[in-house]
Amino acid sequence: MNNYWSAIVNNLDPYVPGEQTKLSNVIKLNTNENPYGPSYKVLDAIKNSCNNQLRLYPDPESISLRDQIASLYNLNIDNIFVGNGSDEVLAQSFLAFFQKEKPIIFPDITYSFYKTYCQLFNIAYKTIPLDEYFNIKISDYLPKIHKNYIGGIIFPNPNAPTGINLELTDVEKIISSNKNIVVVIDEAYVDFGSTSAVSLINKYDNLLIVQTFSKSRSLAGLRIGFAIGNKNLINGLIRVKNSFNSYPVDKLASIGAIAAFQDIDYFNFTCNSIIKLRNNLINDMINLGFEVLPSKANFIFAKHNKYDAKIIYEKLKDNNILVRHFNKDRINQYLRISIGIEEHLSQLIYILNKIVNN
Amino acid sequence: MNNYWSAIVNNLDPYVPGEQTKLSNVIKLNTNENPYGPSYKVLDAIKNSCNNQLRLYPDPESISLRDQIASLYNLNIDNIFVGNGSDEVLAQSFLAFFQKEKPIIFPDITYSFYKTYCQLFNIAYKTIPLDEYFNIKISDYLPKIHKNYIGGIIFPNPNAPTGINLELTDVEKIISSNKNIVVVIDEAYVDFGSTSAVSLINKYDNLLIVQTFSKSRSLAGLRIGFAIGNKNLINGLIRVKNSFNSYPVDKLASIGAIAAFQDIDYFNFTCNSIIKLRNNLINDMINLGFEVLPSKANFIFAKHNKYDAKIIYEKLKDNNILVRHFNKDRINQYLRISIGIEEHLSQLIYILNKIVNN
Repeated sequence: MNNYWSAIVNNLDPYVPGEQTKLSNVIKLNTNENPYGPSYKVLDAIKNSCNNQLRLYPDPESISLRDQIASLYNLNIDNIFVGNGSDEVLAQSFLAFFQKEKPIIFPDITYSFYKTYCQLFNIAYKTIPLDEYFNIKISDYLPKIHKNYIGGIIFPNPNAPTGINLELTDVEKIISSNKNIVVVIDEAYVDFGSTSAVSLINKYDNLLIVQTFSKSRSLAGLRIGFAIGNKNLINGLIRVKNSFNSYPVDKLASIGAIAAFQDIDYFNFTCNSIIKLRNNLINDMINLGFEVLPSKANFIFAKHNKYDAKIIYEKLKDNNILVRHFNKDRINQYLRISIGIEEHLSQLIYILNKIVNN
Repeated sequence: MNNYWSAIVNNLDPYVPGEQTKLSNVIKLNTNENPYGPSYKVLDAIKNSCNNQLRLYPDPESISLRDQIASLYNLNIDNIFVGNGSDEVLAQSFLAFFQKEKPIIFPDITYSFYKTYCQLFNIAYKTIPLDEYFNIKISDYLPKIHKNYIGGIIFPNPNAPTGINLELTDVEKIISSNKNIVVVIDEAYVDFGSTSAVSLINKYDNLLIVQTFSKSRSLAGLRIGFAIGNKNLINGLIRVKNSFNSYPVDKLASIGAIAAFQDIDYFNFTCNSIIKLRNNLINDMINLGFEVLPSKANFIFAKHNKYDAKIIYEKLKDNNILVRHFNKDRINQYLRISIGIEEHLSQLIYILNKIVNN
């Protein structure tokens, strides 16, 4: 508590990101980064733009980057918003669309930043329990149950940290049944085997999709996220952006992001490789006595049938392997493990085998 | 007006940044960028860090960059906060310290983003008129006048768009007389001949200084700003940051900023050159019939004794020279002109001469 702080700052429960280590011998499977580096075309494009023009501000409208994203999805530039990572885009979406009289709703087990945005912007919220298998129950998000007493809906698809996917028909049911409020689908992990709702953008004015360059595009270090939606929603986001920071996406990040979107072959290759690695990892984990949720993301969520998750987490850390453990209701017996390169996953299985079969 | 928007979004009056042109033959003197590119050491450092590690998130705490800034000012890392440009740092400062019951105060003629932050975060404010010579009247900022019915103070030093400087003793008087509220000094332009209040940081718990890499460090394209203050103020900013975006400063921006702070010789050379160019420009403008405010910034603020500012602005634009004109009370007869390289300023004077002596 501090007298200089605004009242809201005292009541914040800030997000805690996964540990970033500087140790080079650590196998880092804790923050869902892409195990493959960005395409060499991305690195070349950045190096070629690293010149004295960095003295100038970037284009505040990020026209080139938004154009590139729009053309890949056969949309218009008016349908695209970009920001300094999808966390910023999400934060600005909460401010732009969710500061309403009625509470917004999201799953009880989901990206924990949602709750923090609500605290920061004084937004009322209600969490909706996932079912016993950690699935989103569609009916909870339909007017028959929530009686229209909600100000907005957000959920990730696939959900995090479960990795469980919702079929597009179910996603559409939620959007089409809630036309009076904005439905935000957080598609941070959509490129690893799930289906994006982007095909619904021209059909529904209330749909906002948020995606990131930090996962499937291997650019977590550069901080670029984007939103796709109806022109009116994008205009709302632009108004908020221009009241907060005119130039959120820097020149090199923009150049790198454009090149990443252009190198479709590399994108397909890395996503497919991660999906294969994930499916092999799931089999290996099951053989070691783990129960693994059906993941469509670049991570898995698993619990052992005998060993405590916190203890496994600690023992892995002792062996220089970082995974993520959340000390929270319902999920404190689970570990979230990012898909790494084959060599790292083999080492993980080798150590896990020692831990559970010692 | 849009039903999907939060109420606050409808009432925003977003900031309008100066035009960014893609035309290469334009002389750009409208957004106060540094006419010199960043040091080659900065460019080399960035290129050397442009590798597959961009797949990883940056350090969320920005330890290396904060350490570098702290050591230059003989302060501790706990005294330093960094963000995605000083606009983001300012926005987060408004949220962290100014969301109070009482209104904050700032000059009537100043950085127009302050008013926008207040709208975005629902902060009450009152503007205090500059005197007839566009100086900040110190007494208006002392309890004797404001009767302690204020929630905070912010002003740029030197002020923008006037370029007029406040002496450090006057700055200190404002800080020391208002110990119960936070005083933010926006020092975006401080390195061009003004004196920073950084020497007062350990003396006053209520002082927050905001600076940027976009002006004197030639890195507008990379978006890095920072705040210097007492540990408790910095902690408040960190709480807000971690409730908005865990990783606001990307890897390459951080590397570039560190290198820029290390190359002190280049920094001194470019700042001194800009000061010389400014003083020459002021003389040339006076000879053409302009009245020029005494600037300590990398821009001047000038009005002609005969010609309308808007008309001069338009004629300069017709001649491929961009300067800034604000269509606002009290200053609509002034032009804000950034200090460019010698060649560009000569061309400016050549064209101005044709305009006013045709």
